[in-house]
Amino acid sequence: MSAAAPVWSVDPRTGKPREEVAVEATPQEVDQAVRAAHAARGALAGLSVRAVFLRTAADLLDASAEHVVEAADAETALGPVRLKGELARTTAQLRAFAEAVEDGSFLDIRIDHADASRTPPWSDLRRVKIPLGVVAVYSASNFPLAFSVPGGDTASALAAGCPVVVKAHPDHPATSELCVSLLRRAAVQAGLPEDVVALVHGFTAGVELVRHPLVSAAGFTGSVRGGRALFDAAAARPVPIPFHGELGSLNPVVVTAAAAEERGEQIGSGLGASMTVGVGQFCTKPGFVLAPQGEAGDALIKALTAAVSDTDAGVMLDHRMRDAFVAGVAERAALPGVEAPVTPGAGGEHTVSGGFLTVPAALLATEGEHDLLLEECFGPVTVVARYADESEIGAVLSRLPGNLTATLQLSSAEAAGEGSGSQLLAKLTQLAGRVLVDGWPTGVAVAPAQHHGGPYPATTSTSTSVGATAVERWLRPVTYQSIPQALLPPELRDDNPLGLPRRVNGTLG
Amino acid sequence: MSAAAPVWSVDPRTGKPREEVAVEATPQEVDQAVRAAHAARGALAGLSVRAVFLRTAADLLDASAEHVVEAADAETALGPVRLKGELARTTAQLRAFAEAVEDGSFLDIRIDHADASRTPPWSDLRRVKIPLGVVAVYSASNFPLAFSVPGGDTASALAAGCPVVVKAHPDHPATSELCVSLLRRAAVQAGLPEDVVALVHGFTAGVELVRHPLVSAAGFTGSVRGGRALFDAAAARPVPIPFHGELGSLNPVVVTAAAAEERGEQIGSGLGASMTVGVGQFCTKPGFVLAPQGEAGDALIKALTAAVSDTDAGVMLDHRMRDAFVAGVAERAALPGVEAPVTPGAGGEHTVSGGFLTVPAALLATEGEHDLLLEECFGPVTVVARYADESEIGAVLSRLPGNLTATLQLSSAEAAGEGSGSQLLAKLTQLAGRVLVDGWPTGVAVAPAQHHGGPYPATTSTSTSVGATAVERWLRPVTYQSIPQALLPPELRDDNPLGLPRRVNGTLG
Repeated sequence: MSAAAPVWSVDPRTGKPREEVAVEATPQEVDQAVRAAHAARGALAGLSVRAVFLRTAADLLDASAEHVVEAADAETALGPVRLKGELARTTAQLRAFAEAVEDGSFLDIRIDHADASRTPPWSDLRRVKIPLGVVAVYSASNFPLAFSVPGGDTASALAAGCPVVVKAHPDHPATSELCVSLLRRAAVQAGLPEDVVALVHGFTAGVELVRHPLVSAAGFTGSVRGGRALFDAAAARPVPIPFHGELGSLNPVVVTAAAAEERGEQIGSGLGASMTVGVGQFCTKPGFVLAPQGEAGDALIKALTAAVSDTDAGVMLDHRMRDAFVAGVAERAALPGVEAPVTPGAGGEHTVSGGFLTVPAALLATEGEHDLLLEECFGPVTVVARYADESEIGAVLSRLPGNLTATLQLSSAEAAGEGSGSQLLAKLTQLAGRVLVDGWPTGVAVAPAQHHGGPYPATTSTSTSVGATAVERWLRPVTYQSIPQALLPPELRDDNPLGLPRRVNGTLG
Repeated sequence: MSAAAPVWSVDPRTGKPREEVAVEATPQEVDQAVRAAHAARGALAGLSVRAVFLRTAADLLDASAEHVVEAADAETALGPVRLKGELARTTAQLRAFAEAVEDGSFLDIRIDHADASRTPPWSDLRRVKIPLGVVAVYSASNFPLAFSVPGGDTASALAAGCPVVVKAHPDHPATSELCVSLLRRAAVQAGLPEDVVALVHGFTAGVELVRHPLVSAAGFTGSVRGGRALFDAAAARPVPIPFHGELGSLNPVVVTAAAAEERGEQIGSGLGASMTVGVGQFCTKPGFVLAPQGEAGDALIKALTAAVSDTDAGVMLDHRMRDAFVAGVAERAALPGVEAPVTPGAGGEHTVSGGFLTVPAALLATEGEHDLLLEECFGPVTVVARYADESEIGAVLSRLPGNLTATLQLSSAEAAGEGSGSQLLAKLTQLAGRVLVDGWPTGVAVAPAQHHGGPYPATTSTSTSVGATAVERWLRPVTYQSIPQALLPPELRDDNPLGLPRRVNGTLG
């Protein structure tokens, strides 16, 4: 065998390697990690041990906050303020899943007693959801904590009772190593084998992982290209597995003429803040805006210009992304009819500067070279399509791909029900998994009613990667028919020893 | 264009064509059907109209019972008694989905009010599930009503608010035409466009359907080969869609030594009845049995021999299936070590006779030519693998693919908790979506706690095709963030005008 390929931590502020953190996993090492995780799955069977584990993981991350934030900042340049907030979100998320485990409603238990009067007759039937098995998690670049090793995919899979093997994102290998060591320590403190969570590095390892016969499901956050390749590999297996991927999103915003009239400046500056936060590297960045032509729209553009011009140049997560951003912006700006009131692109040697493009909406109403503007461009840029009338809004919306979010900016009269607000809302609902009025899509609350997902390519499934229902991705139902009490799992026994919420003969109790 | 290919209804009792029922749909006709269904989707938005439609469909099917049963019997040879029962099941199923629609808990509504104290802060979030869009349904051969045009896939998709285009099974085109005409009449009586349900015939039409850009999901019941091809096509689309396919199942049965000792004869005759019902053409037919060697097992074999010898020769659904059954049985019977106490195979010119094969379980413990015995053979045959000790049970179980069902036959002491009953139950749980003790898997109750699905190839997803939760397949969640009351869908308004069950700030009310 040749020597293992080293995995370097790189400083995006300089482009220079910081340290050699690990080596890429060989196929044999991937196999070992998956087998060890699979062997450990029985230890996660109990609900209470999972809750203890998730809380212990949150506690250990909090206790190492300074160290974790420092490591993540050195590799991602996201800055300590943002990363402290992200860590707080991450540990809150781990604790929220601990609560979801204790609540137990995600087991969706249904018990129907035998009923001979039915057509056909019912035997005693008791349904519960069980863990799928080992879950492969492909972590994101842009949230090195909340959507990476200790993030929502890992937390929800562990909450479901599934061991996890994480494929580290190459942009923050040191942070990944630090986090997985804390998670494994938390496992041991909770009385679990440390192998319930493992980490592998390397592109090839990622492909091996999704193809491994003992991997039962996968979660992914990243690009359309990488995510689709893994989705295809998951579907092509002899035994296909669920692949819950978040791939890309344009996050359209529609500003009505009345809204621009009423508060065009406010909308312009709000947009500028939302599209540049985190150097435009949020999956929910508003990347496409329909705004009216004419004076009110011009006021919006003016405020947006001011807001974006005010932003400092920023460091992107890595130089490959920086190059892709600069090239993507240049390609879009070169299209006929496209203008750049604030030119986005290369800033200093290692930075980029935010900006935005404008285009007449009519150019997007039919297929053509301008379709490039309907593809996500990762980084601090948005495209403002100026429409002449409402029919152009409809024409452009009908050409958009699926999205994580869609946002409507309305006037106060429209928000109160006048005009076409509800029709526009219905159209946006068809396009996205989360729909907002008068807000901005960046910032995703970790709440039971949250849905972070949407029609393809936003996600490859109908599931969410944020919020309590994210746990549903890693479960499958099993129905027990006419099983003697002595053999039933405790979740389904008549005396309900675990005190779980259950729907018995149709009534929740 | 060449002349359209005719679709013939064929009598399986004679192999002779009965009548020309329809023509195969051209790609243009598939496109028209899908576009018409898509255009009609808005009409299904209301919950109450869906319930009225489903009940009207049930009423019209009941009112035409004689005609429907006659048509189905002429094409499938399943006999009027079975088909009357299947029709009753089908209409009960339509009415059960009407109840599920009215209950509304499938919308899984969650409302979280704004809470600034959270990390990160919560805006007002309101989640509801919405219909995916047009659903393609590929109907099964073996249940010309309950898993065909008016069956569970169609009923659950309509309950979810999705229009349906059914690909007719070529074994019962006349029944399919009759049923779709009743469904379309029911739609009109309920005040809906008839295009909310449509029917297409032909293999090519089926492939066109799953590839159509306006088809949003598919349901399938059939063979591994056909189902996998369509699954692959669904996954390979530019925009992949969920494909809920039920492909094949061995439905293993484990008979413990103590169970055979206690009631080997009873088990043998129960098995004989279950594996031959409907000429062995149930997806839940017990196709593989682990039974002990020795005297008690011999008594089981003897009773099974008697039960199967007593069965009349039967007509299978079509001659292609009959040929596949005869060939499949011959190939299996020719394997070394395999015996046929009652030889299954060709009966008369158009019939088959039931039977079973035996094999030492040890021959199945490792990969080899005997693996053929671990593949479903559609028709009245089962394979009894005789084990020497409990370790052989484990070795063989670990080699089984996924199943719809798995059954455990226990002694009364084991059922009361003695011995290895619970360990065996845990192993079977890993292999199937429904697990039974001391029953037989044929017969699937339409109950809320039902799960008809299982690890691949039993199903291509984690969903069920029977029971109230089958509706979940055709929905996706949407979260509304900070939407003014005047614009919220009624399901999510503060005053809850539809009186739906909702989880508000974590509490179900």
